[in-house]
Amino acid sequence: MTEPVTIIGSPVSPYVRKVLAACAVKRIAVEIDPMPPFLARDGFTDLSPLRRIPVWIEGDVTLCDSSVIVQYIEETRPGPSLWPADPVERAKARFIEEFADTRLFDVLGWKLYFQLALKPIFFGGESDAAVVERARETELPAIFDYLEGVTPESGFLFGELSLADLSLAPAFLNGRAVQVNVDPERWPRLAAWLERVETETPLGELNKLARKLMRTPPHAQRARLEEFGLTPATAHDWAGDVPRPGPMTPQ
Amino acid sequence: MTEPVTIIGSPVSPYVRKVLAACAVKRIAVEIDPMPPFLARDGFTDLSPLRRIPVWIEGDVTLCDSSVIVQYIEETRPGPSLWPADPVERAKARFIEEFADTRLFDVLGWKLYFQLALKPIFFGGESDAAVVERARETELPAIFDYLEGVTPESGFLFGELSLADLSLAPAFLNGRAVQVNVDPERWPRLAAWLERVETETPLGELNKLARKLMRTPPHAQRARLEEFGLTPATAHDWAGDVPRPGPMTPQ
Repeated sequence: MTEPVTIIGSPVSPYVRKVLAACAVKRIAVEIDPMPPFLARDGFTDLSPLRRIPVWIEGDVTLCDSSVIVQYIEETRPGPSLWPADPVERAKARFIEEFADTRLFDVLGWKLYFQLALKPIFFGGESDAAVVERARETELPAIFDYLEGVTPESGFLFGELSLADLSLAPAFLNGRAVQVNVDPERWPRLAAWLERVETETPLGELNKLARKLMRTPPHAQRARLEEFGLTPATAHDWAGDVPRPGPMTPQ
Repeated sequence: MTEPVTIIGSPVSPYVRKVLAACAVKRIAVEIDPMPPFLARDGFTDLSPLRRIPVWIEGDVTLCDSSVIVQYIEETRPGPSLWPADPVERAKARFIEEFADTRLFDVLGWKLYFQLALKPIFFGGESDAAVVERARETELPAIFDYLEGVTPESGFLFGELSLADLSLAPAFLNGRAVQVNVDPERWPRLAAWLERVETETPLGELNKLARKLMRTPPHAQRARLEEFGLTPATAHDWAGDVPRPGPMTPQ
């Protein structure tokens, strides 16, 4: 394990923060190319067939998809286990990860953060008010109701910190960036759990970095990494100038 | 492991066939509730928060999401390993599973099979010709080009049969049901690999069952299972009469 590891992708992405948080827990030193997801140059498709971030590069090994990457980290790195020890709990934790990566991000990411923050900036379009209202008023409350039911009164989702927490928590920051919050009166356990993950784990510092990156133009982002003690990637710089959506990006 | 295992979900779903193929490889006896995905009664949300299939029930253990379930099978059952032994190959195989579950099914399932076969039947709507044309003429060829590049001349994707094959192959049947085929002149390795998976693995029989179920009304589907030597679930029958989409279903 002497090859340096490069992570390609902006920590604004909750999927990138998931992987960086896992690296922090496992004490894996990484270099970061903080490429915003829609600015990847053409050749990026050779690294990431779906043009998604993050990408993990370690010598001649290139891996895509945050869930694949964290599982690879778990299987190849020493340090605290990222999943619960019991197989049933582990399966339930992986379902939380799947729920976060698809349903939560579908609503909090694509329907709210994308529509309200990214679409106007990167694609010059207006946000779709009907999509936003339905997401905010109907879909998100149903999601928070479900999550309230699986969140414990104290501690983390499966007792010790696991990838269930580090997968589920990151997208809430993107919600806050567009004024979507977890109301602690309506969802008290969810709100309290989120605060624990954001103050007691490596996600806290990563979120602070992501907030700064949200307000930083692409060419100045590498300097921001260094302010947080992170290392910009020297061998990779995939950011181009022309916004280009990936195959899974809403049009 | 003396509790009987029930799988809820129609084998028309490629995700259900993935799990049933894994059960066949591991020689796990299962009972099946062949519920079509859009007919789940209300209480189904308590079992499957996203109203997706398949669901795995084994005593008091309920697990959702096909990827979660196959990983649970791998971790708890003896028999041939469902993933390659090398961690890098295992990660690459999991990326193929992710690609199949999201991108391939997004196009072959939601944009083609759903629009052309399910939408008119279950929801009474007309198919969206623009979505269908773009999927067939642009998106699917790009997907097949990528897959042609990762498919070997012979054998399976990672040498021995693995979940990469059993995840990727099932959705092609749904394509054929709406006259979408892999042209063997344009994608010869992909077409030949698909034929191997469909003739040399348990997916073959499951595909034959699925083709029959596609032409069988819901109330007669349990009898079809028995024709294929499979056991209908006695403790579960989730099929209702009113089509109701899940949160991830296109409207």
